[in-house]
Amino acid sequence: MTSPFTLTRQVEFNHCDPAGIVFYPRYFEMISALTERFFSDALGHSWESMLLTDGALGTPLGAIEARFRAPSRLGDTLTLTLLVERIGTSSVDFAITCTCAGQTRFTCHATVVHASTANGRAAPWPGDLRTQLERFQTAPEMTE
Amino acid sequence: MTSPFTLTRQVEFNHCDPAGIVFYPRYFEMISALTERFFSDALGHSWESMLLTDGALGTPLGAIEARFRAPSRLGDTLTLTLLVERIGTSSVDFAITCTCAGQTRFTCHATVVHASTANGRAAPWPGDLRTQLERFQTAPEMTE
Amino acid sequence: MTSPFTLTRQVEFNHCDPAGIVFYPRYFEMISALTERFFSDALGHSWESMLLTDGALGTPLGAIEARFRAPSRLGDTLTLTLLVERIGTSSVDFAITCTCAGQTRFTCHATVVHASTANGRAAPWPGDLRTQLERFQTAPEMTE
Amino acid sequence: MTSPFTLTRQVEFNHCDPAGIVFYPRYFEMISALTERFFSDALGHSWESMLLTDGALGTPLGAIEARFRAPSRLGDTLTLTLLVERIGTSSVDFAITCTCAGQTRFTCHATVVHASTANGRAAPWPGDLRTQLERFQTAPEMTE
Repeated sequence: MTSPFTLTRQVEFNHCDPAGIVFYPRYFEMISALTERFFSDALGHSWESMLLTDGALGTPLGAIEARFRAPSRLGDTLTLTLLVERIGTSSVDFAITCTCAGQTRFTCHATVVHASTANGRAAPWPGDLRTQLERFQTAPEMTE
Repeated sequence: MTSPFTLTRQVEFNHCDPAGIVFYPRYFEMISALTERFFSDALGHSWESMLLTDGALGTPLGAIEARFRAPSRLGDTLTLTLLVERIGTSSVDFAITCTCAGQTRFTCHATVVHASTANGRAAPWPGDLRTQLERFQTAPEMTE
Repeated sequence: MTSPFTLTRQVEFNHCDPAGIVFYPRYFEMISALTERFFSDALGHSWESMLLTDGALGTPLGAIEARFRAPSRLGDTLTLTLLVERIGTSSVDFAITCTCAGQTRFTCHATVVHASTANGRAAPWPGDLRTQLERFQTAPEMTE
Repeated sequence: MTSPFTLTRQVEFNHCDPAGIVFYPRYFEMISALTERFFSDALGHSWESMLLTDGALGTPLGAIEARFRAPSRLGDTLTLTLLVERIGTSSVDFAITCTCAGQTRFTCHATVVHASTANGRAAPWPGDLRTQLERFQTAPEMTE
């Protein structure tokens, strides 16, 4: 049984542009915070522990795409939701949505890579982290 | 004859994360600055003039995708390049690349919409702005 | 009886610089969020309501000073605390502190002005907002 | 003979808030960029060289104060100016001003510390860096 990982953020002054709506690079900061909290709170592998104890590993972004459906305004309470779409040897694809009061604000697909921060080389997911990732997969693989 | 629009940005402390590389939401701030300067400096239609004199018009982002090829580090001088891929009635597709010393750092495709900031409704490009946009099109449409 | 207004923020990747500590402009974003939430949640006068219903009023910053005591690192849980030091006709002085696990990270004094966003002219606090502000004053003025 | 170090920045969408003026934490990003470029371009000691070759040294902020005189708007070209007010054993005080078309937008005093990024311990300025700093001092010390 899969349940998505969620993060709630209220739109602050800080996020809004002179047109009074969320400036889209701020959405990408929220997306980064969502994946950061996902690794830390849902998987138990925080970025600081990867950097410091796993030997300078990180999860740099490989690719991202987003479609913006409706603008967000000051004071809106946004719910960001993350599901795992695909788990590769050393990468993972996330499906992310952002809603406010039932209305979709944007949808996003992102691929992050498990890699060395020193030389950028991809590193296979450790088994336990892979198992943790599978818990959030939309269509979990069959286990024998 | 088409020449791309370019913007140069040096990577500052401000852009970098604890892994010592550019934090990707900062790339989207650079992409926003590139399109902002493109409308202002290349097309002569700044966002402030659209907001204030064209009647609360703006160019909100409809969709964006980016692929990250290699990380950027403190002090790197980045060249961002913009070409027009497609001009719609009230939208435009941009092809954006970011390089450093000949190495591609990321590639990006973005669709922006010419729309009212009040109600979000799409507004056709004025003829002169459309003509300006065509100057930066990769494969200009035939004119009869 | 006075109790301070507090906001809790966990240090994210987003806040940290290549030296692995919070980049100080991010602290000022947290200070802005603290005052924003203070006006909204503690006083019941959100910035969006001031902008939209009070006739284009805002609370721009007049002056700020901060002393940084110890660095903050990824994952730290910061507690920001706000007290009212002085209430002027159309300004207010805040005393702000930021701590983590009992250790002071920074202290700050800020003066914000109640002013028109159109022409920058100072506007006296409405009586009810003034009364709300007094609830958070460190040494409340005597009332006759 | 002393000449100040200057940096020019145009106000972008990115810097502005829903009230249409520069959001003050963005000013602190500009101040950080000014000091970063000062150490790199004026003194020849970039932060990346301090971090990587001088043995994990940096220039964290000790204290800062700023007074905001007039708001800045989209498209404004800001000139930031830096002078050295005082050179300590392992610290330096800067006087910073920001103007636009002759009008002062803010004034600022900042103290940065030359310190280890590993343990935060202050480190005396190397002689050559001290000599470089003196070139930008408002009232240079007498030399014998």
